[in-house]
Amino acid sequence: MKSVAENIFSEIPQHLADELFQTLLSKGPVQIERIISKGHTSNVNDWYDQIQDEWVILLEGQARLQFKISPEMISLYPGDYLFIPAHTLHRVHWTDPEKETVWLAIHIFPSEESNA
Amino acid sequence: MKSVAENIFSEIPQHLADELFQTLLSKGPVQIERIISKGHTSNVNDWYDQIQDEWVILLEGQARLQFKISPEMISLYPGDYLFIPAHTLHRVHWTDPEKETVWLAIHIFPSEESNA
Repeated sequence: MKSVAENIFSEIPQHLADELFQTLLSKGPVQIERIISKGHTSNVNDWYDQIQDEWVILLEGQARLQFKISPEMISLYPGDYLFIPAHTLHRVHWTDPEKETVWLAIHIFPSEESNA
Repeated sequence: MKSVAENIFSEIPQHLADELFQTLLSKGPVQIERIISKGHTSNVNDWYDQIQDEWVILLEGQARLQFKISPEMISLYPGDYLFIPAHTLHRVHWTDPEKETVWLAIHIFPSEESNA
């Protein structure tokens, strides 16, 4: 038995000074990314404003997201996913400081035609 | 606290006569799909031959995949992911009959198709 598969929970560095962003696949307009947080958060009033759509799922750990349009926090637990359309201002308000939070993010960049 | 997130492990039907395919997002050339298997397999010599690239991760359960180019089985456990380029013939040899296997598949269609 041989496996060509890799595991998303493996090879997590023990010390995470910064949030870790790793591209698992980059293909045409799509980028699949593993993100590992451990207590990392966005700064207050620091909002992501992305040109691409993002579909994201939390696979391990816990986090709270915030959208600028709404003051309410969105608590995320393993298996929770959501779609963040391009230019939807959002920030990571909190991630679990005690254990790693593993995210899988699918970024879908606009094609040249849709930019036109 | 209010959450707009959905959970990939929720709302799994108790009885699965057939494998369940559910589109979570369809955006341009990208389709994000939840697949739930429970003992379902491909028939012998029945190979998937897809026009699109597929990146797939097993999130719950267990499975064994087979590629036509190689006789070896690829065992998949939670967190295992792999990339299946378009037209790479493959089949699902086995999925756990005792519990649900939850897959997340990212299909990336060629641009001609998505424009069609």
